[in-house]
Amino acid sequence: MYVVVVYDVAVERVNKVKKFLRQHLHWVQNSVFEGEVTLAEFERIKAGLLDIIDEDEDSVIIYKLRSKPIREALGVEKNPIEDII
Amino acid sequence: MYVVVVYDVAVERVNKVKKFLRQHLHWVQNSVFEGEVTLAEFERIKAGLLDIIDEDEDSVIIYKLRSKPIREALGVEKNPIEDII
Repeated sequence: MYVVVVYDVAVERVNKVKKFLRQHLHWVQNSVFEGEVTLAEFERIKAGLLDIIDEDEDSVIIYKLRSKPIREALGVEKNPIEDII
Repeated sequence: MYVVVVYDVAVERVNKVKKFLRQHLHWVQNSVFEGEVTLAEFERIKAGLLDIIDEDEDSVIIYKLRSKPIREALGVEKNPIEDII
């Protein structure tokens, strides 16, 4: 499956979340990662995020898609994903 | 179609982008909006964003989906979308 992960976490945990997601997904822009993952990887990502975030304060949303979505980029692409995958 | 819009824009334009997107979509969390739109609305959103952002500096990515995606929320939902739609 393809996932797009967006997060809104307290500043003291931002780098931890970013560093963790970098191991599994492609960084897209500030607070957004995406990538193709297996179900096992998806579960690992979820478990890892739950270890890092404060569930009373932070918010992470994982969009689960069947395949890589159509995306339109306006302005600069901070990290053009077409080049990576 | 259903869109998820994520943006990474210079601080002086953040509020403008947020205010504009609020007129068309549901705020999800910091720098993320989503919602069901017609093709005409989609084009209006794109044109409006291009008016606001600096294309040499800011980045906006619009994920175009056929329908509302499955989403998993970890931690708090800053603005629970189920309640809105």
